[in-house]
Amino acid sequence: MPLHDFAIIESTLREGEQFSTATFSTAQKQRTASLLDQFGVELIEMTSPCASPQSEADIRAIVGMGLNARILTHVRCNREDVLRALDTGVDGIDIVIGTSQQLMTHSHGKDIAQIIDLALDVIAFVREQAPEIMLRFSTEDSFRSRESDLYRVYLAVADTEMVNRLGVADTVGVATPNQVWTLVHHLVRLTGLDIEFHGHNDSGCAIANACAALEAGATHIDTTILGIGERNGITSLGGLIARLYTLNRDYVSKYNLPLLPALDALIAEYCAIEVPFNNIITGASAFIHKAGIHAKAVLADPSTYEVLRPEDFGLTREIAIGHRLTGWNTLRDRAQTLGLAIPDDLIKEVTQVVKQRADTAPLSIAEIDALLHEVSVLTPENIAFSLPEGEGLEVRA
Amino acid sequence: MPLHDFAIIESTLREGEQFSTATFSTAQKQRTASLLDQFGVELIEMTSPCASPQSEADIRAIVGMGLNARILTHVRCNREDVLRALDTGVDGIDIVIGTSQQLMTHSHGKDIAQIIDLALDVIAFVREQAPEIMLRFSTEDSFRSRESDLYRVYLAVADTEMVNRLGVADTVGVATPNQVWTLVHHLVRLTGLDIEFHGHNDSGCAIANACAALEAGATHIDTTILGIGERNGITSLGGLIARLYTLNRDYVSKYNLPLLPALDALIAEYCAIEVPFNNIITGASAFIHKAGIHAKAVLADPSTYEVLRPEDFGLTREIAIGHRLTGWNTLRDRAQTLGLAIPDDLIKEVTQVVKQRADTAPLSIAEIDALLHEVSVLTPENIAFSLPEGEGLEVRA
Repeated sequence: MPLHDFAIIESTLREGEQFSTATFSTAQKQRTASLLDQFGVELIEMTSPCASPQSEADIRAIVGMGLNARILTHVRCNREDVLRALDTGVDGIDIVIGTSQQLMTHSHGKDIAQIIDLALDVIAFVREQAPEIMLRFSTEDSFRSRESDLYRVYLAVADTEMVNRLGVADTVGVATPNQVWTLVHHLVRLTGLDIEFHGHNDSGCAIANACAALEAGATHIDTTILGIGERNGITSLGGLIARLYTLNRDYVSKYNLPLLPALDALIAEYCAIEVPFNNIITGASAFIHKAGIHAKAVLADPSTYEVLRPEDFGLTREIAIGHRLTGWNTLRDRAQTLGLAIPDDLIKEVTQVVKQRADTAPLSIAEIDALLHEVSVLTPENIAFSLPEGEGLEVRA
Repeated sequence: MPLHDFAIIESTLREGEQFSTATFSTAQKQRTASLLDQFGVELIEMTSPCASPQSEADIRAIVGMGLNARILTHVRCNREDVLRALDTGVDGIDIVIGTSQQLMTHSHGKDIAQIIDLALDVIAFVREQAPEIMLRFSTEDSFRSRESDLYRVYLAVADTEMVNRLGVADTVGVATPNQVWTLVHHLVRLTGLDIEFHGHNDSGCAIANACAALEAGATHIDTTILGIGERNGITSLGGLIARLYTLNRDYVSKYNLPLLPALDALIAEYCAIEVPFNNIITGASAFIHKAGIHAKAVLADPSTYEVLRPEDFGLTREIAIGHRLTGWNTLRDRAQTLGLAIPDDLIKEVTQVVKQRADTAPLSIAEIDALLHEVSVLTPENIAFSLPEGEGLEVRA
């Protein structure tokens, strides 16, 4: 599946600010933008200058850093917001307006005809003011909007030949990969414009949906670090990277992958949250192999149970040893690491002892090592006598 | 998209035990199984009796509970493992063998012809011993296996007419929804057997892949609570529920949804981990609305920005107020809650004050309330004088 060239619109400093505990200071925004730039994201999206005085000042501060990444801000579809955005010196403006019945009723109160009129007016206004600025127009809640409404709006906007990019937004996390694929596919076909996908994760499909958008020809994907955003957030930067890496590592070779753990740690610190135990790539358990069958194969060749190489992200794998699911190959490997020559038959017996002991509580690596050292000086004939009563060779039924 | 009737194979007590910090005691397994049974999962899968002495005893303990859920255990494809599994009194046996080149080389060393011979031998052996037991045969690492190898194995197994269910396993988290759909679709078409999907989450698509399997006609999905399992785990129970709920709430009406938070909390406690901040449904931020535009619409109708109703899971939503992205509708709603009559113009001015103050640090609800009380006794003419210098009405550019 060859993908179109794509770019990441990193929205930690916009969507991410909508996460419950996110309140980034100017210095935090600068540090985040700098690290994202070193990582290699192509675009950084920032909160509207209309949100608060500091929000406006911070856009100017980030624009002033002279990063390789281009700086965008995200505003409502009206002339006042756009004017303030233009005044900050950003490289691009992302305008958005709700098109689902829910949002037309309860957000802005306009019908589709009014939305089209407004969009065309604001788009023309932007082009008058800034003929060269990058301009995106997006619907909001696209996947609960009437399909006919969406096409009316997008086609009218595309017909102006004044926007660079159309945005598709799964604002409430309801879309399926097939729905995303279909909408993006038709927009590419009908407009020839760049297409951006923004997907929330309420039902856990934000990464799959982003990938479906790329498969359909989307050119831009919105991400945030750790996926932070409104409610439980959007497509995470690391999740998108992992998904594309598994399709073809070349898709992500343009990014500085070993910076990903630092990015995740930075935002976890700023938001006073933990990196989730099961976070893709950077969760504490992402490269821990536990069951004996897995450990055996990973010791022979890590690719047996790894589609991501931890070393590509500056991380290491771990083989868990002292638990009830352990296997004799794991213990043999540990004995070899310790320089102990123990016959396989004896290792297998020791494994049964470890399993029985671990039924009560996991053994530490020091306890495992002590057991292996103890056994290494024994002959097979007398090992049973060296172990505490009830924990000898007879444990197996 | 009408789905086939489906059942959940809840594997927290098998796949979940392969999570790095999971070492469940017998009592913990009983508590987990009991709560899963009350939730309404149809099947509970347990660690192989060959893993450790306690693992074997625990299967008997859970079988002895007399739950509505049927109890399965998961074993390697050999006569010895199967015999020990049968001896525990389980309702069903899940056998598995690796079919990818990686696993054939580094796990068991058999080729496809040998795998077929072994599978047919073990399946016939089970049927001799237990004609009525529920029997599943699964390949492992199905999506890195040669497609022709998979069909050779599955079709030979199906031809025995001795298995109830075929398993498809995305063991390393590499599959895409389209790949899952295609394989499951053809297996349903070719064999007419029940199909089970087991999917890891290394690249973040375990939920989307499970849903794709159901769309293709799969009958069983493997889940674990919080998604715990090898590495960063598999399809989470809550994630699957959320995804199906967004497609059609009736799909999950058979489950006792308000028990989900207790299940997630239980396993977090047992494994000494935090429920991830962004966990689907039960993450701390899953139902927090922050940006002013969102809050305004949610106050009018929660469905504007919620596809899951928190009350269906025994949870509540929260509107965040004291931050730089807040909106005047949010503050008006808070004033109304406090029984304060404040004109809209004044509320809008207060909103700008809150935004400016929140640029430094978020305001607590007590601070918001104090500000609203203070303002409620003022007239529009003199509010500017009541606020500290620099924080009055002039804050907007």
